[in-house]
Amino acid sequence: MHKLFNSNSPIGVFDSGIGGLTVVKNIIAKMPNENIIYFGDIARLPYGTKSVETIKKFAEQTVKFLLKQNTKAIVIACNTIASVATDTIKTLANEIPVIDILSSGSRAGAFASKNNNIGIIATPTTINSNAYPIAIKKLNKEIHIFSQACELFVPFIEAGITHHKALELIAKDYLQPLKTHNIDTLILGCSHYPLIKDTISSIMGKDVEIIDPAITVSEELFYTLEKNHNLNLQQKVPTYNFYVTDKPIHFQKIGEKFLHRSMEKLEIVNLTE
Amino acid sequence: MHKLFNSNSPIGVFDSGIGGLTVVKNIIAKMPNENIIYFGDIARLPYGTKSVETIKKFAEQTVKFLLKQNTKAIVIACNTIASVATDTIKTLANEIPVIDILSSGSRAGAFASKNNNIGIIATPTTINSNAYPIAIKKLNKEIHIFSQACELFVPFIEAGITHHKALELIAKDYLQPLKTHNIDTLILGCSHYPLIKDTISSIMGKDVEIIDPAITVSEELFYTLEKNHNLNLQQKVPTYNFYVTDKPIHFQKIGEKFLHRSMEKLEIVNLTE
Repeated sequence: MHKLFNSNSPIGVFDSGIGGLTVVKNIIAKMPNENIIYFGDIARLPYGTKSVETIKKFAEQTVKFLLKQNTKAIVIACNTIASVATDTIKTLANEIPVIDILSSGSRAGAFASKNNNIGIIATPTTINSNAYPIAIKKLNKEIHIFSQACELFVPFIEAGITHHKALELIAKDYLQPLKTHNIDTLILGCSHYPLIKDTISSIMGKDVEIIDPAITVSEELFYTLEKNHNLNLQQKVPTYNFYVTDKPIHFQKIGEKFLHRSMEKLEIVNLTE
Repeated sequence: MHKLFNSNSPIGVFDSGIGGLTVVKNIIAKMPNENIIYFGDIARLPYGTKSVETIKKFAEQTVKFLLKQNTKAIVIACNTIASVATDTIKTLANEIPVIDILSSGSRAGAFASKNNNIGIIATPTTINSNAYPIAIKKLNKEIHIFSQACELFVPFIEAGITHHKALELIAKDYLQPLKTHNIDTLILGCSHYPLIKDTISSIMGKDVEIIDPAITVSEELFYTLEKNHNLNLQQKVPTYNFYVTDKPIHFQKIGEKFLHRSMEKLEIVNLTE
């Protein structure tokens, strides 16, 4: 079969919304030659409270869109999607490597913990899927995992509120139960959460290491491309294309806060089944 | 043209999600003989931060679904949809009456105010559409309207948090600017907000009348059906069918909190264009 991609082909990164831009930020920092296509399914977010079947269907539509553009790798930058649809996506992607934020975060968490007590915070769907505990137990069955759904973190962050007394109070409600379990490592199981890392850290205290899977998934992408001799070695200015299914008020402003740079090529597309 | 409905046909009520169930609750209380079909587009909520074009497209799909079931009236129970898509829906519904929560709420607010200073709280899309001020100014151009988007109220309510110090702090941030304008009437411009009326009232104080359009839209539906001789006069036990595009965790529990009764006939349907 003729390969449709080469080392100059773009990397496809996708999320239900805006959070995956924290992954793009880290890929750009680590691999400045790479062309990137980002897809955010804004019109149908949030995925975090949707059913497994719906999330699988939406993810398939997105991956088909990315594959049509001859991506050389697919990055699942959304923990909710990774928690329920990684196998479906790998089947669809065939020979193209699929890297997912959940597996990367699990490995980093398992590696970081010294006392084998790890906390996970994420959206309700990610927590209910039990995907992080399953992935971590496969790496080390001695590890104890304490999970907490933090339903309101995404709405706060998307409302642009990353420092506020109300956010602190809500965060304390969510995090206090984890503190009682003597965890030494906390995985941010949602790509939005790095934006409120300050608030989370100040509640957890300095003895708890915070794992940001948006960083570790970028490292794993780098290793995978390098191993497959697919790193882009051209010294050209790379292209970053951003596709969304809707562009709500303040989207670009908030997106650029996640990305730490401007989104010049931002286009609205319509996904159908 | 042959009429597809009669007085025993169901009333179609729809919303982007769960909030419109507060309208169904009031219709059941006022018109206990009526059959009701409720549609909530859970898979694609929230509409409140989506673009006008996307909301129109989604609303058209929903109304087509309701019309296929020979509804005798359509109630737009979502302020965001009413603010941008009422004309589109009226064209589609043709001879079938369309009652919208936004027009009803505007009339009730304009009628209630004595000092002609009215406050409106709603989602960002409803506020940005300027639909409430436009509707109220048509009724009485002397009225001054003060609007405030309350982006986090819906996420709090859908997370099941209706009484919490964090919610009070967020509510104070939103409502304090309205208090400085000497309003005597506050319209709850989102069908979720009646569930946090206590918190809102305690901040606004007892001199501000709170208007709940979920009540006034049910009154208007009653008058419209009565005028058209379409009230259901059968003494049969009515049927309530609830259709959603997704059924997330806790949906039924939260829905029944909105509805104040059980949802026996709850079905997931798939909307396509």
